[in-house]
Amino acid sequence: MRVGFIGLGEAGHIYAEATAAAGHDVTGFDPAAPTTPDGVRRLETAAEVVAASELVVVLTGASLSGRIATAEAPHLSDGAIWADFTTASPEVMREVGTVVEAAGGRFADVAVLGPVPSKGAATETMVSGSAASDVASFLRSLGADVETVDGPAGEATSRKLLRSVMMKSLATTVVEALEAGRAAGCEEWVHAQIAAQLSGDADAKIERYVAGSRKHAVRRAHEMDSVVEHLATLGVEAEMSAASGRVLRRLAGDDAA
Amino acid sequence: MRVGFIGLGEAGHIYAEATAAAGHDVTGFDPAAPTTPDGVRRLETAAEVVAASELVVVLTGASLSGRIATAEAPHLSDGAIWADFTTASPEVMREVGTVVEAAGGRFADVAVLGPVPSKGAATETMVSGSAASDVASFLRSLGADVETVDGPAGEATSRKLLRSVMMKSLATTVVEALEAGRAAGCEEWVHAQIAAQLSGDADAKIERYVAGSRKHAVRRAHEMDSVVEHLATLGVEAEMSAASGRVLRRLAGDDAA
Repeated sequence: MRVGFIGLGEAGHIYAEATAAAGHDVTGFDPAAPTTPDGVRRLETAAEVVAASELVVVLTGASLSGRIATAEAPHLSDGAIWADFTTASPEVMREVGTVVEAAGGRFADVAVLGPVPSKGAATETMVSGSAASDVASFLRSLGADVETVDGPAGEATSRKLLRSVMMKSLATTVVEALEAGRAAGCEEWVHAQIAAQLSGDADAKIERYVAGSRKHAVRRAHEMDSVVEHLATLGVEAEMSAASGRVLRRLAGDDAA
Repeated sequence: MRVGFIGLGEAGHIYAEATAAAGHDVTGFDPAAPTTPDGVRRLETAAEVVAASELVVVLTGASLSGRIATAEAPHLSDGAIWADFTTASPEVMREVGTVVEAAGGRFADVAVLGPVPSKGAATETMVSGSAASDVASFLRSLGADVETVDGPAGEATSRKLLRSVMMKSLATTVVEALEAGRAAGCEEWVHAQIAAQLSGDADAKIERYVAGSRKHAVRRAHEMDSVVEHLATLGVEAEMSAASGRVLRRLAGDDAA
């Protein structure tokens, strides 16, 4: 397949090189990138790359996503695919999809679910949009684990962000709890308490967390005030605990309403 | 054993009744409680209860904890035990311990680890202080699961608060993630994503959360900005996600420092 890359920065470089290595015919455009990936023919303009490609992969900064689509999608061959791999928002992805389809192309937004430098083109992804299944096949040809998401353009990006609510907030909660345990001289004990929450019957725990947060919202909100005070005496930042207290206060209000 | 209760509110009522039912000789004082638990002899003053008891259990609001100890501990028999079951802070518990021991008594702070109305006197507890092992035996006689914590008075209370950093913040993170999933029309998918984080190899996950939060702090902080924006478009409060972003920003700064 003729694949064109717009953006040959860190991630673009890795994906373009892997695409060439997988036997595809690869062109690329980047006004600034200092190096050209092995096996990639670098062209002078984005328009040339788009015109030459059956699949265009956009790997620029998120803020350029909409502007590039508006300027360059008109150069797409009929039925060619525009795949946006940037971290633009679901709303922007939907707009880019509309622009691409108005230009006669097909669109997919690709949510990359980890740091590309670690696992390269094999990094786990989610894909949605009218060209989702073709782009998923392409990514699988590079060794990636791909989940296609039904629904309009932007869905994969939305899912990635929804997943981060849990994953990143959980991760920083663990960081805060361990910092507090360390400051109090009982990090090992706190570690064991955390571990107990992260194994076992997950569904039962989720139900208990949701029901318990609602049922005991008032009492727990007060307790989180004490937690925040205690962490202050330990010299530990209590961002997650304070936010938890605010959520519990809201849940308490919800029940009163 | 002669056990005296100061405070016969919801939790005090439950513990006092269970103590009488377990065959102890129980007195109680409360200036306001509308009912007297079965088997409990209610006295006119806290001083009488304290003077009559080998073990005094304080189950008032946390704000009264220090004041009651200062006023009533002088009435303790020599070597009698003062057990503070309130939600007062570790700092207050240490002060109460000092007051009680100056009066010739022994002290334990009892951290009650769940809602007493659900499991009654069998609710899980942690106990610390000079009288910890005696109070633990008493609680076990009521059917409670007790963990004694080495170290000075206040340690059990501190552990309870440290445990809440993880448990309550995790619970409200789950609430926020599910709310976002519901608003986006993919609650089941989010549920499965959460479940995947709450089962399996806990130690490996803890290590990954801590290392990943530090290593990718800058990128993840930006992503959490996008998450907060996305939740706003869904009409969902993003307290936990916003706090996570602030923690990641701090971690990014730590690394830069």
